[in-house]
Amino acid sequence: MDASNGLEDFEKTSDDDIKFFFDASPPLKNAAEIKRKTDEFIQKNSNSGKLFQNPRRIVLVTSGGTTVPLEQRCVRYIDNFSSGHRGATSAEYFLRAGYAVVFLYREGTYQSFCTSLPNNPLLECLQVTKESNIAACPQYEKTVKEAIINSHAATSCGTLLKLPFTTIFEYLQNLQLIASSMSSIGSRALFYLAAAVSDFYVPWESMHSPFVHNKFDVLQAVHKIQSSSGPLDMRLVQVPKMLLVLRRDWAPKAFCISFKLETDKNILLKKAGMALEKYSMDMVVANELLSRKEEVIIVTKGGNIVVKRDTTRADADVEEPLIKLIVDRHSASISSVS
Amino acid sequence: MDASNGLEDFEKTSDDDIKFFFDASPPLKNAAEIKRKTDEFIQKNSNSGKLFQNPRRIVLVTSGGTTVPLEQRCVRYIDNFSSGHRGATSAEYFLRAGYAVVFLYREGTYQSFCTSLPNNPLLECLQVTKESNIAACPQYEKTVKEAIINSHAATSCGTLLKLPFTTIFEYLQNLQLIASSMSSIGSRALFYLAAAVSDFYVPWESMHSPFVHNKFDVLQAVHKIQSSSGPLDMRLVQVPKMLLVLRRDWAPKAFCISFKLETDKNILLKKAGMALEKYSMDMVVANELLSRKEEVIIVTKGGNIVVKRDTTRADADVEEPLIKLIVDRHSASISSVS
Repeated sequence: MDASNGLEDFEKTSDDDIKFFFDASPPLKNAAEIKRKTDEFIQKNSNSGKLFQNPRRIVLVTSGGTTVPLEQRCVRYIDNFSSGHRGATSAEYFLRAGYAVVFLYREGTYQSFCTSLPNNPLLECLQVTKESNIAACPQYEKTVKEAIINSHAATSCGTLLKLPFTTIFEYLQNLQLIASSMSSIGSRALFYLAAAVSDFYVPWESMHSPFVHNKFDVLQAVHKIQSSSGPLDMRLVQVPKMLLVLRRDWAPKAFCISFKLETDKNILLKKAGMALEKYSMDMVVANELLSRKEEVIIVTKGGNIVVKRDTTRADADVEEPLIKLIVDRHSASISSVS
Repeated sequence: MDASNGLEDFEKTSDDDIKFFFDASPPLKNAAEIKRKTDEFIQKNSNSGKLFQNPRRIVLVTSGGTTVPLEQRCVRYIDNFSSGHRGATSAEYFLRAGYAVVFLYREGTYQSFCTSLPNNPLLECLQVTKESNIAACPQYEKTVKEAIINSHAATSCGTLLKLPFTTIFEYLQNLQLIASSMSSIGSRALFYLAAAVSDFYVPWESMHSPFVHNKFDVLQAVHKIQSSSGPLDMRLVQVPKMLLVLRRDWAPKAFCISFKLETDKNILLKKAGMALEKYSMDMVVANELLSRKEEVIIVTKGGNIVVKRDTTRADADVEEPLIKLIVDRHSASISSVS
């Protein structure tokens, strides 16, 4: 779940801004390997459909927050908090609906099938028995076993590809790479962009190269406007609006869903509507901070749809009806273009 | 391990700065409960010595990095990267040396006895057998079992108290609370301050109260110097130097060790020496970035001591001889005052 998708303001993003961002980014580690894995995953799944989907559809679920490094050897960074709970849960429902899922997640955030486990399941859920076997504590036995079995099943049967990121650079480079690869399946591609993406960043090349010798040195080099003593002033520049290029260039036929989170419902709906139009999204999932686990509003060109969790079941979540609705709309969209 | 202990610059910290920091901090959640647990832990351990220590000594190990929230409903924050590996490993050696350990750690960082496990041990080390039992994958069996057994043993026998923090506010409020409690055991208290503490923060009260309506609004409210468009300017103020008050007021008889990390050895030793003197530390552990897992230099009033890991053993770490030396010096210090 995200607080912002880099959509809050709707200034123009030029191709120059985007080129500058990527040119000024540190090279993505293992880019060739990620591309190979992604292409292979998409090709394999695209050729092997099951259930009602033939050929199979593929969704990219992004999850968790991106960081903005303040130093090249990253000790200090700005982070966007997101537990990744919505992304991880949503990915489960997409898998159950027969989609292949590319899960682009922030390192250390929630994983699918593990969202109901404590923070540190190894120490909090497991014990070693007198016979020297590992066993779950009784109250966690069912949850732990299901988490392990379902996770292993999804990765081993080849319908779940997990790709981690940490920084805004890694996130957007991965997004470009995956989107370009997914463009090969046209309208069967779905983008479910739930990650909390930073609005501002420090261009990599403008950072101090070596490690911190002096915090003033570094931040001065990075931010240019350091005062000589006392408070610290930092200058960050806007992250270009990549949804524009995702829609226009990277995967123009895909079904695209972005997210918005606010406290005030009116502001929320206004901004969600602007994002829908400005970035030609198919849907914007509007979340009000306090009620977002109970209901969300899906903003579409055809109107707004309120999606609520089933309150008659204690363990029901809002992602279940949300993903059901999205899958239906995606189906309709595929039919309309084919 | 830390990149900075709030020691980089040696400007004066006044009592007013410290009062301002705590007055402007959000109240620590569960402060009464933390105090009760800490007091109980210290009292119990102080009255029950084992091995060569009677009564038992108690060490506070701080571990991982602190965050600086940029909003009251914390979505965006500045973070100091630290895996917590040094803190978690050091705590193990202190436990083995017979100390009781208060482990003040950043939520989500390494835990003692678990430092050699993969990021997500539940999914990476465990499997469910055909008989529907949980078992470790063969290559991890020994490590996983030892981690669970040792962790549970330390907490259940009452020699390890784990207290999590996330923000700079929580960290320093916990530090004050624990230090004040530990002052009751005088020279038997040891402070091993390995956490990476933020140098700058945004005073809580100056932040925008409600949630983000507009990133410009919020950051403008927080930082005051937002330009009308384009780049984002932020202003942060210095975190007061708490080591001064730790030493002077909170626990004046304790043995105090702080940490310093730099790339340049000369700058490192100079700064470590300044911290030793300025904050009346008993030791400053000086880490050079690239070699810190192989050796550290302990800076003391009596001179510098190089501590190296035993390179004849592949699994040997630098914390083993480091903690041995610290325990010896702490013993000498206790003898000299008693």
